[in-house]
Amino acid sequence: MKSEIVKIGKVKIGGGLPVVIQSMTDTPTSDINATVKQCIELYDAGAEIVRMTVNDEASAKAIPEIKKILKKKGYENIALVGDFHFNGHILLNKYPLLAKTLDKYRINPANEKSFEEFVRIAIENDKPVRIGLNKGSFDGDIVKAILKYVEKAEKIGLKKNKIVLSLKSSDAVDFISDHERLISEMKKNRKIYALHVGLTEAGTGTQGIVSSSVATGILLKKGIGDTIRVSITPSKNDSRTKEVEVCKNILQTLNLRTFTPKITSCPGCGRTNKKYFLAMVEKINDHIKKYKKTKNLHVAIMGCIVNGPGECKKADIAIMLPGHQEKQTAQVYIKGKLTKSLNGKNMLKEFFEILDKELKIR
Amino acid sequence: MKSEIVKIGKVKIGGGLPVVIQSMTDTPTSDINATVKQCIELYDAGAEIVRMTVNDEASAKAIPEIKKILKKKGYENIALVGDFHFNGHILLNKYPLLAKTLDKYRINPANEKSFEEFVRIAIENDKPVRIGLNKGSFDGDIVKAILKYVEKAEKIGLKKNKIVLSLKSSDAVDFISDHERLISEMKKNRKIYALHVGLTEAGTGTQGIVSSSVATGILLKKGIGDTIRVSITPSKNDSRTKEVEVCKNILQTLNLRTFTPKITSCPGCGRTNKKYFLAMVEKINDHIKKYKKTKNLHVAIMGCIVNGPGECKKADIAIMLPGHQEKQTAQVYIKGKLTKSLNGKNMLKEFFEILDKELKIR
Repeated sequence: MKSEIVKIGKVKIGGGLPVVIQSMTDTPTSDINATVKQCIELYDAGAEIVRMTVNDEASAKAIPEIKKILKKKGYENIALVGDFHFNGHILLNKYPLLAKTLDKYRINPANEKSFEEFVRIAIENDKPVRIGLNKGSFDGDIVKAILKYVEKAEKIGLKKNKIVLSLKSSDAVDFISDHERLISEMKKNRKIYALHVGLTEAGTGTQGIVSSSVATGILLKKGIGDTIRVSITPSKNDSRTKEVEVCKNILQTLNLRTFTPKITSCPGCGRTNKKYFLAMVEKINDHIKKYKKTKNLHVAIMGCIVNGPGECKKADIAIMLPGHQEKQTAQVYIKGKLTKSLNGKNMLKEFFEILDKELKIR
Repeated sequence: MKSEIVKIGKVKIGGGLPVVIQSMTDTPTSDINATVKQCIELYDAGAEIVRMTVNDEASAKAIPEIKKILKKKGYENIALVGDFHFNGHILLNKYPLLAKTLDKYRINPANEKSFEEFVRIAIENDKPVRIGLNKGSFDGDIVKAILKYVEKAEKIGLKKNKIVLSLKSSDAVDFISDHERLISEMKKNRKIYALHVGLTEAGTGTQGIVSSSVATGILLKKGIGDTIRVSITPSKNDSRTKEVEVCKNILQTLNLRTFTPKITSCPGCGRTNKKYFLAMVEKINDHIKKYKKTKNLHVAIMGCIVNGPGECKKADIAIMLPGHQEKQTAQVYIKGKLTKSLNGKNMLKEFFEILDKELKIR
């Protein structure tokens, strides 16, 4: 059973369509230039939907301006979502242009003073609504609760193709079991709403990336999730786009979407010439990144004779670098065939020439 | 049905015991000092089993020395595994002290010239063997193949509590389905061997971490895996222990083991005071890291009023920092209760004092 398809501006989610990536700005929404800049960064990084807080009148007034500038800059495809809490219905009522401009409204009904009014505004403006509960700020059965809110919204008149649900939690195990229960309840009712999936407040650094990957990956592998967000606290030196990069890698790992060439490289061991091998892997990775439009490509960079030949044969283009005690020659494979041996200090330059030639055809 | 319990030196895996973390050195094994140093680093980081290549006579001779020094330094608990390819049986025959010292032998039967001889040496020395195939260097049905090798090993006389299996692949989707098939075959035969699980050659940076987390996480959630390894190519500035950190985070995400306090922190948005919030999160993370022995603790660091109070109530200790337009006061929660309001520039110092007091009791 497939979920409902929901249109969010020019973006469609649900119904088995490719899983859509989204992110959220962390600039004050009222800072129009900073927010426009970050919307573009997030979109260019791969976020098709960008959400921003609409917490006050200044933000409410900024949204139409942000949209206008984005359009002018050629970014009319970014689906803009307003994140409302406490005063959503007031702001949307007071600023009709805000209500018209946004492509989706997000509301946590446990935080909103007038859910009915909020839903009515969405219906009047023909906009989809994400009804999202957060386990951290909710006591009781989150699955039963969200289905009650949906029932309420439908009674008011919101169509099922205008509804997106989310159940956020900062605990991965709860997060997984809540979604499994939600899906099973929806199947019983024979109404599968589109799902926004994302572990929330996942923390910083490796913890944030790993827990988001594990939790989201487990659900996606079960076919749960129409759009995903990763909520990591950015580390120093990390851009806000890091969360988009994590989303892309989760989807690509599961073969759900392809964004970049797949690069198979071994971790190295006592057989590999560590410094040399790691430097080579990095340089080849950097070189491939330059081909921004190339997606369907599998490159292998292997460090010794053990798994080298096998992995190299299975890649589109591959290089097997010599291990410690092996002959100091690198073997280049193209489409599974050992094509060339490279020697000496021009090795990398020659490999890049071969790569460039292959990549230009694609 | 539980897997067989296998003893690897002083470490036990299988039978539903906590999942064991392992790693592999990337120093030349013959460089005794460098290898000892890395074994200790990996163990201190959380790897209970450390594998090293035994690719030549110099490495074979080094192993007993490495073990001796580790013992002297108080690291006799590290389970040492020898990674053999092509010439395993020759080295083990020629160096009886090598065969005696290692706690487990790892062999890829597709790469070993005399699997029978290799298994016989393991039986004579009463050592467990990991029989591991790598999809990248194997053509044909990897699941059927490994079960044939196991049958062969058992015919030679290797007991099932001396067998660990692994099916490595650099493709997460293949990796998952191969393991599902292996488990289902083993269940049919009513013989569940202990499993070493790890996506191999996962690549570098975010790609490596995410794909390993997704693939390993999916299997562990299904109860597949008695010991895990993450094989990422270290990035510049990354220590070899990074892969151990990823393992720990995967296990902790799924509540399979607890290594560090859980820190819930929000990703920030337009409501939060970005620079201030991220700096605070980092400082608090750093402070908590100092308490190396504290594990069972849940700290929340939240950035605004939306999910702040809820998440803070669910943590052991929490701080809710003020958002942009909120009153510039931080709220401290202890065991679910709002206990204190902090103000001014000593806020963090005061919070650390509260943290220290709570942490010392544990």
